[in-house]
Amino acid sequence: MNILVTLDRNYLLPLKVLLTSLLINNPGECFDVYLASDDLDADNTADTARLLEDAGSRLYLIRVDERLFEDAPTLRYYSRAMYYRLLAAQYLPEDMDRILYLDPDILVINPIRPLYETEMGGFLYAACIHKGIVNISKPINHIRLSAYETEGYYNSGMLLMNLRAIREAVLAEDVFAYVKKNRQLLVLPDQDILNGLYGDRIMPLDESLWNYHAGKYREYCIASAGEKDMNWVMRNTAILHFCGKRKPWHLSCSGRFAALYKQYMQISSRR
Amino acid sequence: MNILVTLDRNYLLPLKVLLTSLLINNPGECFDVYLASDDLDADNTADTARLLEDAGSRLYLIRVDERLFEDAPTLRYYSRAMYYRLLAAQYLPEDMDRILYLDPDILVINPIRPLYETEMGGFLYAACIHKGIVNISKPINHIRLSAYETEGYYNSGMLLMNLRAIREAVLAEDVFAYVKKNRQLLVLPDQDILNGLYGDRIMPLDESLWNYHAGKYREYCIASAGEKDMNWVMRNTAILHFCGKRKPWHLSCSGRFAALYKQYMQISSRR
Repeated sequence: MNILVTLDRNYLLPLKVLLTSLLINNPGECFDVYLASDDLDADNTADTARLLEDAGSRLYLIRVDERLFEDAPTLRYYSRAMYYRLLAAQYLPEDMDRILYLDPDILVINPIRPLYETEMGGFLYAACIHKGIVNISKPINHIRLSAYETEGYYNSGMLLMNLRAIREAVLAEDVFAYVKKNRQLLVLPDQDILNGLYGDRIMPLDESLWNYHAGKYREYCIASAGEKDMNWVMRNTAILHFCGKRKPWHLSCSGRFAALYKQYMQISSRR
Repeated sequence: MNILVTLDRNYLLPLKVLLTSLLINNPGECFDVYLASDDLDADNTADTARLLEDAGSRLYLIRVDERLFEDAPTLRYYSRAMYYRLLAAQYLPEDMDRILYLDPDILVINPIRPLYETEMGGFLYAACIHKGIVNISKPINHIRLSAYETEGYYNSGMLLMNLRAIREAVLAEDVFAYVKKNRQLLVLPDQDILNGLYGDRIMPLDESLWNYHAGKYREYCIASAGEKDMNWVMRNTAILHFCGKRKPWHLSCSGRFAALYKQYMQISSRR
Protein backbone atom coordinates (compact mmCIF):
# COMPACT_ATOMS: atom_id res chain seq x y z
CA MET A 1 0.00 0.00 0.00
CA ASN A 2 1.19 3.52 -0.76
CA ILE A 3 1.21 6.01 2.08
CA LEU A 4 1.86 9.75 1.76
CA VAL A 5 2.92 12.13 4.49
CA THR A 6 3.99 15.72 3.95
CA LEU A 7 5.87 17.31 6.80
CA ASP A 8 8.93 19.15 8.02
CA ARG A 9 11.57 18.04 10.50
CA ASN A 10 9.54 19.23 13.48
CA TYR A 11 7.20 16.30 12.90
CA LEU A 12 9.72 13.49 12.70
CA LEU A 13 8.84 12.22 16.17
CA PRO A 14 5.08 11.88 15.52
CA LEU A 15 5.87 10.43 12.09
CA LYS A 16 7.77 7.57 13.73
CA VAL A 17 4.91 7.06 16.17
CA LEU A 18 2.43 6.95 13.29
CA LEU A 19 4.53 4.45 11.34
CA THR A 20 5.14 2.28 14.41
CA SER A 21 1.40 2.02 15.00
CA LEU A 22 0.79 1.36 11.29
CA LEU A 23 3.27 -1.53 11.22
CA ILE A 24 2.17 -3.15 14.48
CA ASN A 25 -1.48 -3.12 13.51
CA ASN A 26 -1.06 -4.19 9.90
CA PRO A 27 0.95 -7.39 10.19
CA GLY A 28 1.86 -9.04 6.92
CA GLU A 29 1.46 -5.82 4.92
CA CYS A 30 4.20 -3.92 3.10
CA PHE A 31 4.10 -0.17 2.77
CA ASP A 32 5.73 2.24 0.38
CA VAL A 33 5.82 5.43 2.42
CA TYR A 34 6.33 8.65 0.46
CA LEU A 35 7.59 11.53 2.52
CA ALA A 36 7.29 14.91 0.79
CA SER A 37 9.24 17.65 2.46
CA ASP A 38 11.35 20.79 2.16
CA ASP A 39 13.92 20.09 4.81
CA LEU A 40 14.28 16.34 5.28
CA ASP A 41 17.21 14.35 3.94
CA ALA A 42 18.65 10.84 4.18
CA ASP A 43 20.46 11.75 7.40
CA ASN A 44 17.59 13.00 9.47
CA THR A 45 15.25 10.28 8.22
CA ALA A 46 17.72 7.38 8.56
CA ASP A 47 16.04 5.84 11.59
CA THR A 48 12.59 6.26 10.04
CA ALA A 49 13.84 4.43 6.95
CA ARG A 50 15.29 1.66 9.12
CA LEU A 51 12.03 1.31 11.07
CA LEU A 52 10.23 0.65 7.78
CA GLU A 53 12.91 -1.58 6.28
CA ASP A 54 12.98 -3.80 9.38
CA ALA A 55 9.30 -4.51 8.69
CA GLY A 56 9.76 -5.15 4.97
CA SER A 57 8.49 -1.70 3.98
CA ARG A 58 10.24 1.27 2.35
CA LEU A 59 10.64 5.00 2.74
CA TYR A 60 10.77 7.22 -0.34
CA LEU A 61 11.99 10.70 0.40
CA ILE A 62 10.70 13.34 -1.98
CA ARG A 63 12.32 16.72 -2.18
CA VAL A 64 9.66 18.62 -4.08
CA ASP A 65 11.07 20.54 -7.02
CA GLU A 66 10.52 24.21 -6.19
CA ARG A 67 9.82 25.00 -9.82
CA LEU A 68 6.59 23.03 -9.58
CA PHE A 69 5.20 25.67 -7.27
CA GLU A 70 6.97 28.80 -8.45
CA ASP A 71 3.66 30.38 -9.51
CA ALA A 72 1.99 29.44 -6.26
CA PRO A 73 0.67 32.33 -4.18
CA THR A 74 1.81 32.24 -0.58
CA LEU A 75 -0.50 33.01 2.25
CA ARG A 76 0.42 34.67 5.54
CA TYR A 77 2.76 32.35 7.45
CA TYR A 78 2.10 29.31 5.26
CA SER A 79 4.93 28.03 3.08
CA ARG A 80 4.45 26.47 -0.32
CA ALA A 81 4.48 23.12 1.43
CA MET A 82 0.77 23.72 2.02
CA TYR A 83 0.22 22.61 -1.60
CA TYR A 84 2.05 19.29 -1.24
CA ARG A 85 -1.06 17.41 -0.22
CA LEU A 86 -3.48 18.66 -2.83
CA LEU A 87 -0.96 18.66 -5.66
CA ALA A 88 0.71 15.39 -4.73
CA ALA A 89 0.01 13.92 -8.15
CA GLN A 90 2.50 16.45 -9.58
CA TYR A 91 5.49 14.85 -7.87
CA LEU A 92 4.42 11.25 -7.18
CA PRO A 93 5.34 8.51 -9.69
CA GLU A 94 3.26 8.93 -12.85
CA ASP A 95 2.07 5.34 -12.90
CA MET A 96 0.79 5.34 -9.32
CA ASP A 97 -2.97 4.80 -9.10
CA ARG A 98 -3.70 5.33 -5.48
CA ILE A 99 -2.16 6.61 -2.28
CA LEU A 100 -3.39 7.15 1.25
CA TYR A 101 -2.43 10.52 2.72
CA LEU A 102 -2.16 10.61 6.54
CA ASP A 103 -1.49 13.53 8.89
CA PRO A 104 1.37 12.88 11.29
CA ASP A 105 -0.91 13.33 14.35
CA ILE A 106 -2.56 9.97 13.70
CA LEU A 107 -2.33 6.50 15.24
CA VAL A 108 -3.31 3.53 13.07
CA ILE A 109 -4.84 1.04 15.48
CA ASN A 110 -6.38 -1.54 13.14
CA PRO A 111 -5.86 -2.81 9.58
CA ILE A 112 -6.33 -0.21 6.85
CA ARG A 113 -6.61 -2.54 3.86
CA PRO A 114 -10.43 -2.24 3.74
CA LEU A 115 -10.03 1.53 3.52
CA TYR A 116 -7.28 1.33 0.93
CA GLU A 117 -9.37 -0.92 -1.29
CA THR A 118 -12.46 1.30 -1.22
CA GLU A 119 -14.10 1.34 -4.66
CA MET A 120 -13.85 5.04 -5.54
CA GLY A 121 -15.54 5.19 -8.96
CA GLY A 122 -15.04 8.70 -10.33
CA PHE A 123 -14.42 10.36 -6.97
CA LEU A 124 -11.13 12.21 -6.60
CA TYR A 125 -10.76 11.65 -2.89
CA ALA A 126 -12.36 9.67 -0.11
CA ALA A 127 -12.42 11.45 3.23
CA CYS A 128 -14.43 11.98 6.40
CA ILE A 129 -16.49 14.78 7.82
CA HIS A 130 -16.19 15.37 11.55
CA LYS A 131 -19.91 15.72 11.97
CA GLY A 132 -20.10 15.97 15.70
CA ILE A 133 -17.70 18.84 15.69
CA VAL A 134 -18.18 20.92 12.57
CA ASN A 135 -21.94 20.89 12.30
CA ILE A 136 -22.15 24.32 13.88
CA SER A 137 -19.64 25.71 11.44
CA LYS A 138 -21.20 23.97 8.45
CA PRO A 139 -23.27 26.96 7.29
CA ILE A 140 -20.35 29.26 7.96
CA ASN A 141 -18.04 27.07 5.92
CA HIS A 142 -20.57 26.96 3.10
CA ILE A 143 -20.73 30.74 2.92
CA ARG A 144 -17.04 31.23 3.61
CA LEU A 145 -15.87 28.87 0.92
CA SER A 146 -18.80 29.19 -1.48
CA ALA A 147 -18.71 25.43 -1.23
CA TYR A 148 -20.89 23.13 -3.23
CA GLU A 149 -23.89 21.55 -1.54
CA THR A 150 -21.83 18.79 -0.03
CA GLU A 151 -22.46 16.74 3.04
CA GLY A 152 -20.33 19.03 5.14
CA TYR A 153 -16.77 20.07 5.66
CA TYR A 154 -14.23 17.32 5.08
CA ASN A 155 -11.26 16.88 7.36
CA SER A 156 -8.15 16.56 5.23
CA GLY A 157 -6.10 14.60 7.77
CA MET A 158 -6.94 11.32 6.06
CA LEU A 159 -7.33 11.44 2.29
CA LEU A 160 -7.54 8.43 0.06
CA MET A 161 -6.39 9.70 -3.34
CA ASN A 162 -7.59 8.40 -6.67
CA LEU A 163 -4.51 9.63 -8.50
CA ARG A 164 -5.70 8.85 -12.04
CA ALA A 165 -8.79 10.98 -11.58
CA ILE A 166 -6.84 13.65 -9.71
CA ARG A 167 -4.32 14.03 -12.55
CA GLU A 168 -7.17 14.98 -14.85
CA ALA A 169 -9.19 17.16 -12.49
CA VAL A 170 -6.95 18.84 -9.92
CA LEU A 171 -4.93 21.47 -11.78
CA ALA A 172 -2.31 23.62 -10.14
CA GLU A 173 -3.58 26.74 -11.92
CA ASP A 174 -7.10 26.23 -10.55
CA VAL A 175 -5.75 25.82 -7.05
CA PHE A 176 -3.54 28.89 -7.29
CA ALA A 177 -6.37 30.98 -8.79
CA TYR A 178 -8.70 29.86 -5.98
CA VAL A 179 -6.16 30.91 -3.36
CA LYS A 180 -5.62 34.32 -4.99
CA LYS A 181 -9.36 34.94 -5.16
CA ASN A 182 -10.19 33.73 -1.65
CA ARG A 183 -7.07 34.86 0.13
CA GLN A 184 -8.99 36.58 2.93
CA LEU A 185 -11.33 33.66 3.55
CA LEU A 186 -8.89 30.82 3.92
CA VAL A 187 -8.38 29.70 7.51
CA LEU A 188 -6.92 26.21 7.13
CA PRO A 189 -5.72 26.64 3.56
CA ASP A 190 -5.32 23.13 2.21
CA GLN A 191 -8.43 21.83 3.91
CA ASP A 192 -10.39 24.88 2.77
CA ILE A 193 -9.20 24.54 -0.83
CA LEU A 194 -10.06 20.85 -0.83
CA ASN A 195 -13.61 21.57 0.32
CA GLY A 196 -14.10 24.75 -1.66
CA LEU A 197 -12.88 23.44 -5.01
CA TYR A 198 -13.49 19.69 -4.84
CA GLY A 199 -16.05 19.13 -2.08
CA ASP A 200 -18.54 17.59 -4.50
CA ARG A 201 -16.00 15.06 -5.76
CA ILE A 202 -15.09 13.64 -2.38
CA MET A 203 -16.51 10.28 -1.36
CA PRO A 204 -17.70 10.42 2.23
CA LEU A 205 -16.46 7.67 4.53
CA ASP A 206 -17.42 6.71 8.09
CA GLU A 207 -15.42 8.97 10.37
CA SER A 208 -15.73 6.62 13.35
CA LEU A 209 -13.74 4.04 11.38
CA TRP A 210 -11.37 6.05 9.19
CA ASN A 211 -10.81 9.41 10.86
CA TYR A 212 -11.90 9.20 14.48
CA HIS A 213 -11.47 12.53 16.30
CA ALA A 214 -9.62 11.39 19.44
CA GLY A 215 -10.85 14.31 21.51
CA LYS A 216 -14.52 13.47 20.96
CA TYR A 217 -14.95 10.07 22.57
CA ARG A 218 -18.01 11.17 24.53
CA GLU A 219 -19.67 12.68 21.48
CA TYR A 220 -19.28 9.50 19.41
CA CYS A 221 -20.52 7.43 22.34
CA ILE A 222 -23.62 9.56 22.85
CA ALA A 223 -24.37 9.91 19.13
CA SER A 224 -24.36 6.10 18.78
CA ALA A 225 -26.51 5.54 21.90
CA GLY A 226 -23.58 3.92 23.64
CA GLU A 227 -22.71 1.45 20.90
CA LYS A 228 -19.40 3.08 20.02
CA ASP A 229 -17.81 2.71 23.43
CA MET A 230 -14.15 2.00 24.05
CA ASN A 231 -14.54 -1.70 23.14
CA TRP A 232 -16.08 -0.76 19.81
CA VAL A 233 -13.44 1.85 19.06
CA MET A 234 -10.50 -0.39 19.82
CA ARG A 235 -12.01 -3.21 17.76
CA ASN A 236 -13.20 -1.23 14.77
CA THR A 237 -11.61 2.18 14.43
CA ALA A 238 -8.50 2.07 12.26
CA ILE A 239 -7.47 5.73 12.17
CA LEU A 240 -7.36 7.65 15.42
CA HIS A 241 -6.72 11.31 14.69
CA PHE A 242 -5.43 13.63 17.40
CA CYS A 243 -6.62 16.79 15.69
CA GLY A 244 -6.76 20.07 17.47
CA LYS A 245 -4.14 22.18 19.12
CA ARG A 246 -3.26 19.93 22.07
CA LYS A 247 -1.02 17.36 20.51
CA PRO A 248 -0.59 13.94 22.13
CA TRP A 249 3.21 14.23 22.10
CA HIS A 250 2.99 17.33 24.29
CA LEU A 251 3.58 16.74 27.96
CA SER A 252 0.24 18.23 28.90
CA CYS A 253 -1.78 15.81 26.80
CA SER A 254 -4.30 13.82 28.79
CA GLY A 255 -7.57 12.10 27.99
CA ARG A 256 -8.71 8.61 27.19
CA PHE A 257 -6.20 7.93 24.45
CA ALA A 258 -3.17 9.59 26.08
CA ALA A 259 -1.73 6.36 27.52
CA LEU A 260 -2.15 4.66 24.15
CA TYR A 261 -0.36 7.44 22.25
CA LYS A 262 2.47 7.62 24.77
CA GLN A 263 2.89 3.85 24.63
CA TYR A 264 3.46 4.07 20.88
CA MET A 265 5.89 6.95 21.47
CA GLN A 266 7.80 4.72 23.85
CA ILE A 267 7.79 1.74 21.48
CA SER A 268 8.93 3.92 18.57
CA SER A 269 11.72 5.46 20.66
CA ARG A 270 13.28 1.99 21.00
CA ARG A 271 13.34 1.33 17.27
CA MET B 1 14.66 -14.47 31.21
CA ASN B 2 12.40 -16.98 32.94
CA ILE B 3 8.75 -16.04 33.37
CA LEU B 4 6.21 -17.98 35.42
CA VAL B 5 2.45 -17.80 35.14
CA THR B 6 0.02 -20.11 36.90
CA LEU B 7 -3.49 -20.17 35.54
CA ASP B 8 -6.38 -22.14 34.17
CA ARG B 9 -7.96 -22.04 30.74
CA ASN B 10 -10.25 -19.16 31.66
CA TYR B 11 -7.21 -16.89 31.62
CA LEU B 12 -5.79 -17.82 28.23
CA LEU B 13 -6.99 -14.59 26.65
CA PRO B 14 -5.33 -12.26 29.19
CA LEU B 15 -2.23 -14.48 29.11
CA LYS B 16 -1.85 -13.80 25.38
CA VAL B 17 -2.36 -10.08 26.00
CA LEU B 18 0.31 -10.14 28.73
CA LEU B 19 2.79 -11.99 26.51
CA THR B 20 2.08 -9.72 23.53
CA SER B 21 2.86 -6.65 25.62
CA LEU B 22 5.95 -8.35 27.08
CA LEU B 23 7.35 -9.14 23.63
CA ILE B 24 6.59 -5.76 22.05
CA ASN B 25 8.19 -3.85 24.90
CA ASN B 26 11.23 -6.05 25.36
CA PRO B 27 12.74 -6.17 21.87
CA GLY B 28 15.83 -8.31 21.53
CA GLU B 29 15.02 -10.39 24.62
CA CYS B 30 14.19 -14.08 24.70
CA PHE B 31 11.83 -15.51 27.27
CA ASP B 32 11.32 -18.98 28.65
CA VAL B 33 7.72 -18.84 29.79
CA TYR B 34 6.65 -21.53 32.27
CA LEU B 35 2.94 -22.10 32.43
CA ALA B 36 1.82 -24.13 35.43
CA SER B 37 -1.72 -25.36 35.20
CA ASP B 38 -4.26 -28.09 35.91
CA ASP B 39 -6.22 -27.97 32.70
CA LEU B 40 -4.02 -26.65 29.89
CA ASP B 41 -2.51 -28.84 27.21
CA ALA B 42 -0.62 -28.51 23.95
CA ASP B 43 -3.88 -28.05 22.04
CA ASN B 44 -5.38 -25.17 23.94
CA THR B 45 -2.02 -23.40 24.26
CA ALA B 46 -0.89 -23.91 20.67
CA ASP B 47 -1.39 -20.30 19.62
CA THR B 48 0.27 -19.02 22.79
CA ALA B 49 3.26 -21.22 22.02
CA ARG B 50 3.36 -19.91 18.44
CA LEU B 51 3.17 -16.30 19.63
CA LEU B 52 6.30 -16.89 21.72
CA GLU B 53 8.15 -18.94 19.10
CA ASP B 54 7.61 -16.28 16.44
CA ALA B 55 9.53 -13.92 18.71
CA GLY B 56 12.34 -16.37 19.47
CA SER B 57 10.93 -17.27 22.89
CA ARG B 58 9.49 -20.54 24.24
CA LEU B 59 6.54 -21.85 26.17
CA TYR B 60 7.01 -24.65 28.71
CA LEU B 61 3.77 -26.21 29.79
CA ILE B 62 3.87 -27.71 33.27
CA ARG B 63 1.21 -30.13 34.43
CA VAL B 64 1.87 -30.11 38.13
CA ASP B 65 2.13 -33.61 39.58
CA GLU B 66 -0.82 -33.96 41.94
CA ARG B 67 1.23 -36.02 44.35
CA LEU B 68 3.28 -32.93 45.15
CA PHE B 69 0.27 -31.43 46.85
CA GLU B 70 -1.60 -34.47 48.10
CA ASP B 71 -1.10 -33.37 51.72
CA ALA B 72 -2.18 -29.82 50.97
CA PRO B 73 -5.23 -28.58 52.84
CA THR B 74 -7.88 -27.06 50.59
CA LEU B 75 -9.70 -23.91 51.50
CA ARG B 76 -13.27 -23.06 50.65
CA TYR B 77 -13.55 -22.70 46.87
CA TYR B 78 -9.79 -22.60 46.25
CA SER B 79 -8.21 -25.51 44.42
CA ARG B 80 -4.72 -26.78 45.09
CA ALA B 81 -3.56 -24.56 42.26
CA MET B 82 -3.40 -21.81 44.88
CA TYR B 83 -0.08 -23.33 45.98
CA TYR B 84 1.51 -23.25 42.52
CA ARG B 85 2.96 -19.80 43.02
CA LEU B 86 4.48 -20.18 46.46
CA LEU B 87 5.70 -23.73 45.88
CA ALA B 88 6.90 -23.20 42.32
CA ALA B 89 10.39 -24.38 43.22
CA GLN B 90 8.93 -27.86 43.71
CA TYR B 91 8.11 -28.32 40.04
CA LEU B 92 10.45 -25.92 38.20
CA PRO B 93 13.79 -27.22 36.85
CA GLU B 94 16.15 -27.90 39.75
CA ASP B 95 19.00 -25.88 38.30
CA MET B 96 16.95 -22.73 37.74
CA ASP B 97 18.18 -19.78 39.82
CA ARG B 98 15.58 -17.15 39.22
CA ILE B 99 12.14 -16.66 37.72
CA LEU B 100 9.72 -13.75 37.49
CA TYR B 101 6.14 -14.63 38.39
CA LEU B 102 3.46 -12.46 36.78
CA ASP B 103 -0.31 -12.43 37.25
CA PRO B 104 -2.22 -12.68 33.97
CA ASP B 105 -3.97 -9.32 34.58
CA ILE B 106 -0.76 -7.45 33.80
CA LEU B 107 0.56 -5.44 30.85
CA VAL B 108 4.33 -5.12 30.49
CA ILE B 109 4.87 -1.68 28.98
CA ASN B 110 8.64 -1.21 29.31
CA PRO B 111 11.76 -3.39 29.55
CA ILE B 112 11.90 -5.66 32.59
CA ARG B 113 15.59 -6.57 32.48
CA PRO B 114 16.48 -4.09 35.27
CA LEU B 115 13.89 -5.79 37.47
CA TYR B 116 15.03 -9.26 36.53
CA GLU B 117 18.64 -8.44 37.39
CA THR B 118 17.86 -7.01 40.82
CA GLU B 119 20.55 -8.05 43.31
CA MET B 120 18.52 -10.05 45.83
CA GLY B 121 21.12 -11.09 48.40
CA GLY B 122 19.45 -13.48 50.82
CA PHE B 123 15.89 -12.34 50.14
CA LEU B 124 13.51 -15.05 48.95
CA TYR B 125 11.33 -12.78 46.89
CA ALA B 126 11.27 -9.23 45.60
CA ALA B 127 7.81 -7.68 45.44
CA CYS B 128 5.86 -4.45 45.86
CA ILE B 129 3.51 -3.07 48.46
CA HIS B 130 0.55 -1.13 47.15
CA LYS B 131 1.01 1.62 49.69
CA GLY B 132 -1.58 4.03 48.49
CA ILE B 133 -4.22 1.39 48.73
CA VAL B 134 -3.43 -0.94 51.59
CA ASN B 135 -2.22 1.54 54.16
CA ILE B 136 -5.59 1.54 55.88
CA SER B 137 -5.64 -2.23 56.06
CA LYS B 138 -2.01 -2.49 57.13
CA PRO B 139 -2.75 -2.77 60.87
CA ILE B 140 -5.59 -5.16 60.12
CA ASN B 141 -3.33 -7.34 58.02
CA HIS B 142 -0.71 -7.34 60.74
CA ILE B 143 -3.16 -8.61 63.32
CA ARG B 144 -4.97 -10.90 60.92
CA LEU B 145 -1.85 -12.63 59.68
CA SER B 146 0.31 -12.22 62.78
CA ALA B 147 2.72 -10.84 60.24
CA TYR B 148 6.25 -9.82 61.02
CA GLU B 149 7.02 -6.12 61.33
CA THR B 150 7.38 -5.66 57.62
CA GLU B 151 6.91 -2.58 55.54
CA GLY B 152 3.36 -3.52 54.76
CA TYR B 153 1.35 -6.03 52.83
CA TYR B 154 3.00 -7.23 49.63
CA ASN B 155 0.99 -7.72 46.48
CA SER B 156 1.80 -11.14 45.04
CA GLY B 157 0.92 -10.28 41.43
CA MET B 158 4.57 -9.67 40.59
CA LEU B 159 7.10 -11.82 42.41
CA LEU B 160 10.74 -12.06 41.53
CA MET B 161 11.80 -15.41 42.91
CA ASN B 162 15.27 -16.26 44.22
CA LEU B 163 14.83 -19.98 43.66
CA ARG B 164 18.03 -21.12 45.35
CA ALA B 165 17.06 -19.41 48.59
CA ILE B 166 13.44 -20.49 48.23
CA ARG B 167 14.41 -24.16 47.92
CA GLU B 168 16.02 -23.96 51.35
CA ALA B 169 13.47 -21.80 53.11
CA VAL B 170 10.01 -22.32 51.67
CA LEU B 171 8.88 -25.77 52.73
CA ALA B 172 5.60 -27.32 51.70
CA GLU B 173 4.95 -28.62 55.23
CA ASP B 174 5.32 -25.11 56.69
CA VAL B 175 2.92 -23.72 54.15
CA PHE B 176 0.35 -26.46 54.72
CA ALA B 177 0.66 -26.11 58.51
CA TYR B 178 0.17 -22.35 58.25
CA VAL B 179 -2.97 -22.83 56.18
CA LYS B 180 -4.41 -25.36 58.62
CA LYS B 181 -3.72 -23.08 61.57
CA ASN B 182 -5.00 -19.87 59.97
CA ARG B 183 -7.82 -21.31 57.90
CA GLN B 184 -10.37 -18.77 59.16
CA LEU B 185 -8.12 -15.77 58.62
CA LEU B 186 -7.06 -16.28 55.04
CA VAL B 187 -8.81 -13.98 52.59
CA LEU B 188 -6.51 -14.06 49.58
CA PRO B 189 -4.76 -17.31 50.44
CA ASP B 190 -1.49 -17.25 48.49
CA GLN B 191 -0.91 -13.56 49.09
CA ASP B 192 -1.75 -13.96 52.78
CA ILE B 193 0.57 -16.95 53.18
CA LEU B 194 3.37 -15.09 51.43
CA ASN B 195 3.04 -12.13 53.79
CA GLY B 196 2.28 -14.12 56.92
CA LEU B 197 5.10 -16.63 56.59
CA TYR B 198 7.76 -14.85 54.55
CA GLY B 199 6.99 -11.12 54.82
CA ASP B 200 10.34 -10.39 56.47
CA ARG B 201 12.26 -12.10 53.67
CA ILE B 202 10.74 -10.11 50.82
CA MET B 203 12.78 -7.34 49.25
CA PRO B 204 10.59 -4.29 48.72
CA LEU B 205 10.65 -2.76 45.22
CA ASP B 206 9.20 0.48 43.86
CA GLU B 207 5.57 -0.25 43.07
CA SER B 208 5.29 2.66 40.61
CA LEU B 209 7.88 0.90 38.42
CA TRP B 210 7.32 -2.81 38.97
CA ASN B 211 3.71 -3.29 40.07
CA TYR B 212 1.73 -0.17 39.24
CA HIS B 213 -1.92 -0.46 40.33
CA ALA B 214 -3.72 0.63 37.14
CA GLY B 215 -6.81 1.80 38.99
CA LYS B 216 -4.88 4.29 41.12
CA TYR B 217 -3.47 6.77 38.64
CA ARG B 218 -4.73 9.76 40.58
CA GLU B 219 -3.32 8.47 43.85
CA TYR B 220 0.17 7.98 42.41
CA CYS B 221 0.00 11.39 40.79
CA ILE B 222 -1.00 13.15 43.99
CA ALA B 223 1.43 11.20 46.18
CA SER B 224 4.30 12.27 43.91
CA ALA B 225 3.20 15.92 43.78
CA GLY B 226 2.38 15.53 40.11
CA GLU B 227 5.71 14.03 39.04
CA LYS B 228 4.28 10.62 38.21
CA ASP B 229 1.84 11.81 35.57
CA MET B 230 0.96 9.89 32.43
CA ASN B 231 4.24 10.84 30.72
CA TRP B 232 6.21 9.49 33.63
CA VAL B 233 4.19 6.30 33.82
CA MET B 234 4.47 5.50 30.15
CA ARG B 235 8.22 6.21 30.18
CA ASN B 236 9.13 4.47 33.42
CA THR B 237 6.56 1.98 34.63
CA ALA B 238 7.26 -1.51 33.34
CA ILE B 239 4.51 -3.54 35.01
CA LEU B 240 0.98 -2.22 34.86
CA HIS B 241 -1.25 -4.37 37.04
CA PHE B 242 -5.02 -4.35 36.57
CA CYS B 243 -5.75 -5.68 40.03
CA GLY B 244 -9.19 -5.58 41.50
CA LYS B 245 -12.45 -7.08 40.44
CA ARG B 246 -13.09 -5.08 37.28
CA LYS B 247 -10.85 -6.74 34.77
CA PRO B 248 -9.67 -4.86 31.69
CA TRP B 249 -10.87 -7.59 29.35
CA HIS B 250 -14.41 -7.12 30.59
CA LEU B 251 -16.62 -5.03 28.38
CA SER B 252 -17.39 -2.61 31.18
CA CYS B 253 -13.77 -1.70 31.83
CA SER B 254 -13.05 1.99 31.46
CA GLY B 255 -10.46 4.34 32.87
CA ARG B 256 -7.19 5.84 31.74
CA PHE B 257 -5.56 2.59 30.70
CA ALA B 258 -8.61 0.94 29.10
CA ALA B 259 -7.70 1.96 25.52
CA LEU B 260 -4.17 0.70 26.05
CA TYR B 261 -5.30 -2.69 27.36
CA LYS B 262 -7.87 -3.12 24.62
CA GLN B 263 -5.26 -2.23 21.99
CA TYR B 264 -3.04 -5.08 23.23
CA MET B 265 -6.09 -7.36 23.19
CA GLN B 266 -6.64 -6.43 19.58
CA ILE B 267 -2.98 -6.92 18.62
CA SER B 268 -2.84 -10.29 20.39
CA SER B 269 -6.05 -11.43 18.68
CA ARG B 270 -4.27 -11.12 15.31
CA ARG B 271 -1.34 -13.29 16.32
